[in-house]
Amino acid sequence: MQILVVNVGSTSLKFKLFDMSAETTDGWTRTQEQVLASGKVDRVGGESSVFSYQLGDAPRQEQKAQCPHQRAAIQRVLETLTDSETGILTSLDDVQAVGFKPVHAKGIAESVVINEAVIQAMEEYVPLAPAHNPPYIEAFGIFQELLPGKPLVGVFEPAFHTTIPDYARTYGIPYEWTEKHAIRRYGFHGASHRYVAWRAPELAGVGRDAARVISCHLGGSSSICAIRGGKSVDTSMGFSPQSGLPNATRNGDIDPFIALYMMEKEGLSVGEIREALSKSGGLAGISGLSGDIRDLEEAAEEGNERARLALRVLVHEVKKYVGAYTAVLEGLDILAFTGGIGENGMNIRRDVCSGLECLGVEIDLERNAVGGAEGIISTEKSPVKIVVVLANEELVIARETMQLMSDPGSRVRDFSALD
Amino acid sequence: MQILVVNVGSTSLKFKLFDMSAETTDGWTRTQEQVLASGKVDRVGGESSVFSYQLGDAPRQEQKAQCPHQRAAIQRVLETLTDSETGILTSLDDVQAVGFKPVHAKGIAESVVINEAVIQAMEEYVPLAPAHNPPYIEAFGIFQELLPGKPLVGVFEPAFHTTIPDYARTYGIPYEWTEKHAIRRYGFHGASHRYVAWRAPELAGVGRDAARVISCHLGGSSSICAIRGGKSVDTSMGFSPQSGLPNATRNGDIDPFIALYMMEKEGLSVGEIREALSKSGGLAGISGLSGDIRDLEEAAEEGNERARLALRVLVHEVKKYVGAYTAVLEGLDILAFTGGIGENGMNIRRDVCSGLECLGVEIDLERNAVGGAEGIISTEKSPVKIVVVLANEELVIARETMQLMSDPGSRVRDFSALD
Repeated sequence: MQILVVNVGSTSLKFKLFDMSAETTDGWTRTQEQVLASGKVDRVGGESSVFSYQLGDAPRQEQKAQCPHQRAAIQRVLETLTDSETGILTSLDDVQAVGFKPVHAKGIAESVVINEAVIQAMEEYVPLAPAHNPPYIEAFGIFQELLPGKPLVGVFEPAFHTTIPDYARTYGIPYEWTEKHAIRRYGFHGASHRYVAWRAPELAGVGRDAARVISCHLGGSSSICAIRGGKSVDTSMGFSPQSGLPNATRNGDIDPFIALYMMEKEGLSVGEIREALSKSGGLAGISGLSGDIRDLEEAAEEGNERARLALRVLVHEVKKYVGAYTAVLEGLDILAFTGGIGENGMNIRRDVCSGLECLGVEIDLERNAVGGAEGIISTEKSPVKIVVVLANEELVIARETMQLMSDPGSRVRDFSALD
Repeated sequence: MQILVVNVGSTSLKFKLFDMSAETTDGWTRTQEQVLASGKVDRVGGESSVFSYQLGDAPRQEQKAQCPHQRAAIQRVLETLTDSETGILTSLDDVQAVGFKPVHAKGIAESVVINEAVIQAMEEYVPLAPAHNPPYIEAFGIFQELLPGKPLVGVFEPAFHTTIPDYARTYGIPYEWTEKHAIRRYGFHGASHRYVAWRAPELAGVGRDAARVISCHLGGSSSICAIRGGKSVDTSMGFSPQSGLPNATRNGDIDPFIALYMMEKEGLSVGEIREALSKSGGLAGISGLSGDIRDLEEAAEEGNERARLALRVLVHEVKKYVGAYTAVLEGLDILAFTGGIGENGMNIRRDVCSGLECLGVEIDLERNAVGGAEGIISTEKSPVKIVVVLANEELVIARETMQLMSDPGSRVRDFSALD
């Protein structure tokens, strides 16, 4: 069974083609999870795009491309996969389904086959994910046209968080709002946290069934998840991706009366406040410089006080969530870092762990001083295993898509028990 | 030195008269802190108010009173204190100053003598404390008239939190907002948390200088404070009292995009959203029943699911903050409960502590099963001392007021070293 996984950004398109064929040996069904092809188109919509890809074992290719819009980028990818000479697929018919990780749709917190109702529900929540929902909605239309009849599966980001108990997802707001508008903590980065829930115990050598894991997905967009026995029990993002940790340009947790006060004092509209909090908040807002950790570390090194402040705010907020989720989990077995910063941000990891010995977290500074490598970075005697997980959201999406295809009745999947 | 402390509510007026005279014995200056009189007027503005008070050692009195407005209530209190037969003061001249704990003023996070500039700064922040600022502003005018020339001291609620470091008070918002509008974490319930910082180590038998204390002020209005060596280093309320823990009728931490979404979908104005989040949110919003814990516990006992949910949300949020502040403090020595729920809510205390053994918190269920008593409620071997502190905000205000009178140059006072 071949599953194409596509990641749609506002100016990029990434894909991975998986062979998810099941094979039966010794009476057990196992799943092959082989990546047949992968690649991305950057600067979609710009003057000249860049298309890089790898097919099978052939060397990685990089080409200039004309992709003035998503449709052109998608066509280019599909053509490349089925090229009669170099392609890896005989025909697009070989693709069983296409999996996506769209962000947010009203009332949907699971993996579903995309149809008109789903697209409608995504339209409804465009205000909550203004940068993410529109390109996905557009891409679904194009795929429906180019791959008619082929199931498109949306592994919505909140899907992993459906197991959060009611008291951890209920807000202190009028109950009518909760009911009428489905306002509650949804949580995001579901595929990433689900992968950590599966991979981190393996790396740490801890049994998955009872493991208490805190997954720190840190990057341009960051969130933290408390995981018990493979299931999400709490997470830092909420109704929208605009709460929790500070992100590159998005605010994290703030007093909601800040938005109301600014609207009144500066005469800002709802749209203007949303735009400011989405594009000029977070680490970029605090530093006035950049939302990129690498820029901030460099500037802080050179004495830039606001860059230093932005980094310290991020570290402080992560530490608070690690403490909070240790309380939620009633103890901690594994502290996992993933995502761009989680995998490569050695200083951030070091600073987050500093002082958390009270929670059993003891980082090994030598092991930590390696970027981009998977493994344990805690000391031998640390009660909590600290691990770095290389994110693999595509694999989770391929698994969810395959699962939904083979068992269409069950829309919510728990992959913690898959292997 | 006699200090009158006045607590102004929208429909109530409370007072305590302290003798704060210093006496010098054995070469050390000590402060007497004797309560000479106390009392309150309830249902101010209603048909018939109730005035209850105690003067010196005389028995407590309760009388009906005509107080159609705050002025009448204030006059009644001042007349009673100076009554030629039963009064405890010869003249109002004996009062050195009047201390208050107003909530919020733009740019003021300290104890100050009230003047026009301060009142102006309070006007500016009426939108952030719509229920609290207006009655204080009115009361200041009346006291200025009735006690001309007498210093009125505002121990603003954020005063205790000025020691919170920059990275714990900075929001991920555009920096211009922070600068122009003084938007940052202020924190509230300062007098209560300051009293806990002083009293809890005494009760726990732990040295105050290095003690790491988490102060849980739980009541109709709730907040949590992380205290190290007598100083606030983080707190759950922020720019306004509308964030942090869920309160009786006010939202706690919510995704700010909830407010924006509701404005857009329901066409609500800034004022309407503020009103809804202030009066129909929190525990009352979740339960649809009441913001009072006693009502909720009774209803939950009878099987009301939403009352049960509201209680569990509160407990979950408190646990998260206890974990977060243990991380911030890099360990915990004392967990303190104060305020109406903190002092009397045995079930809430039990449920908060349940599962926090991982942080060294071990509650003694027998000791805990006493309401309204001060003391230790942890087990003998609990690494963290759990204490109940009977709130005494008036004493803190009297101390701050006296300090400001004797040393007008220093506007910010740290009373952790007072005794």
